[in-house]
Amino acid sequence: VADNRPIGVFDSGVGGLTVVRKAMEILPNESIIYLGDTARVPYGNKTPGLIRLYSQQCARFLLAHDVKLIVVACNTASAVALNTVQEISPVPVIGVITPAAKMALSHSPNGNIGIIGTRTTVRSKAYDADLWQMSEQRRLTVQAAACPLFVPLVEEGMEQHPATRAIAADYLRPFKESPVDVLILGCTHFPLLAEVIQQELPDTTLINSGEAAVSTALGVLNSINARRTATETPRRSFYVTDFPDTFPGIANRFLGVSGVHAEQVSIEELSTHHDHAHHD
Amino acid sequence: VADNRPIGVFDSGVGGLTVVRKAMEILPNESIIYLGDTARVPYGNKTPGLIRLYSQQCARFLLAHDVKLIVVACNTASAVALNTVQEISPVPVIGVITPAAKMALSHSPNGNIGIIGTRTTVRSKAYDADLWQMSEQRRLTVQAAACPLFVPLVEEGMEQHPATRAIAADYLRPFKESPVDVLILGCTHFPLLAEVIQQELPDTTLINSGEAAVSTALGVLNSINARRTATETPRRSFYVTDFPDTFPGIANRFLGVSGVHAEQVSIEELSTHHDHAHHD
Repeated sequence: VADNRPIGVFDSGVGGLTVVRKAMEILPNESIIYLGDTARVPYGNKTPGLIRLYSQQCARFLLAHDVKLIVVACNTASAVALNTVQEISPVPVIGVITPAAKMALSHSPNGNIGIIGTRTTVRSKAYDADLWQMSEQRRLTVQAAACPLFVPLVEEGMEQHPATRAIAADYLRPFKESPVDVLILGCTHFPLLAEVIQQELPDTTLINSGEAAVSTALGVLNSINARRTATETPRRSFYVTDFPDTFPGIANRFLGVSGVHAEQVSIEELSTHHDHAHHD
Repeated sequence: VADNRPIGVFDSGVGGLTVVRKAMEILPNESIIYLGDTARVPYGNKTPGLIRLYSQQCARFLLAHDVKLIVVACNTASAVALNTVQEISPVPVIGVITPAAKMALSHSPNGNIGIIGTRTTVRSKAYDADLWQMSEQRRLTVQAAACPLFVPLVEEGMEQHPATRAIAADYLRPFKESPVDVLILGCTHFPLLAEVIQQELPDTTLINSGEAAVSTALGVLNSINARRTATETPRRSFYVTDFPDTFPGIANRFLGVSGVHAEQVSIEELSTHHDHAHHD
């Protein structure tokens, strides 16, 4: 049994490309369709209701492209809109929160777990909820910090700038004052700051939420016998809702390969997918 | 002759509140309707076509509220979408670019003019074009620098943070190496960084583009005899397309007064205004 259909991945913008990067490593024979909602990025400072609407629209676009599984790469969307996407999806939908929480627990000897993310992700307490649910009576200490400026700093390519180190030192101070075993990088942009974060917290294990999600996707595909077996080179297709001229450079940095070609899909088209849903 | 209808102001988000602040100072007897497109902020890294679509939708919302004049507070929208808004508007539409360029010329003894703004504003060369058109054969030296991180730094309230000073030092280095008489703050967020910018460039006169736009609006209202003469307290109404819980704090800082009350208008409603236009 095999399923040669592509895996769908969506994100609020370019950040989810770090998840695609992990998918290309962990699932090298799978085709992938990526949708980045660059016309409405960032989701991280928008309200949950709006994030749910946008996430459903993204998911419908991927479903219209006949995907066999959806990865919600965006932590913010995973935190507030996962159930809303699952409701409308006939195929499995995997967020980044539960996989990353699970990976954090398995890497934390003392149960001291830190979380960094956008303000919306942190306020949602989605990671906290999952950690507590999966802790199985284990003693846990969970602390979270919002790091909203990390996203624009990474998009500007300023990972090595002194200002980034100064801001990282501020944001990560709580985890120095009360050390954590593991720190969940609860935003797709943050793996690009792993070096700076690790310098601030040298004794902490960093958890890449995208890598955790892709590992979970692998497990799900195995369990439902849905791995791709076709021997032609898998297709990787990239769609964005807006195509600013900074996109190719950012995409290449995030994906770790150059020459990414993306097609534009209009917001109107996404909204139409959404509107059709009302008539179902 | 008088016109007691409100002035409409729109912006991609909260930044335009610095323009409303100037309007409340310069036009204290005028009613104001403000629309901040917080659901789709920022415009500064989106493509011109998308910015034109969003700007028309914002303008239609204000026109539906019977405004007598529209101020496009957003520099990015003024740079790429002013004509598009003027096309659909029966009332005068004032952007921030031409007024700020004019003010810069009048304050520049040597014709050495600097511009800072978002990447889209700088790339549009809208300020350069206006400066050259209005220069009247005067020798001009115009240089511009994109300062994309200033916006999130201001929204995070980090105007005084060492990281902001480090980033400002980087962004403003061209204006130290080749000094300018005047520097146009070509983004509504930048007046909140005036102190930091002035520290870097102590001999440069800073031009607040929002203040320039409001002064121009005053001139236009006078010339068409459309000042408000009603003696009741003028109304100031604030609408946003998304209402994140950070809004009240940011709004108060930008507006310089506390207790701002804003109502939410949905993107769907804005898009509907737009869609009707297609049937005109």
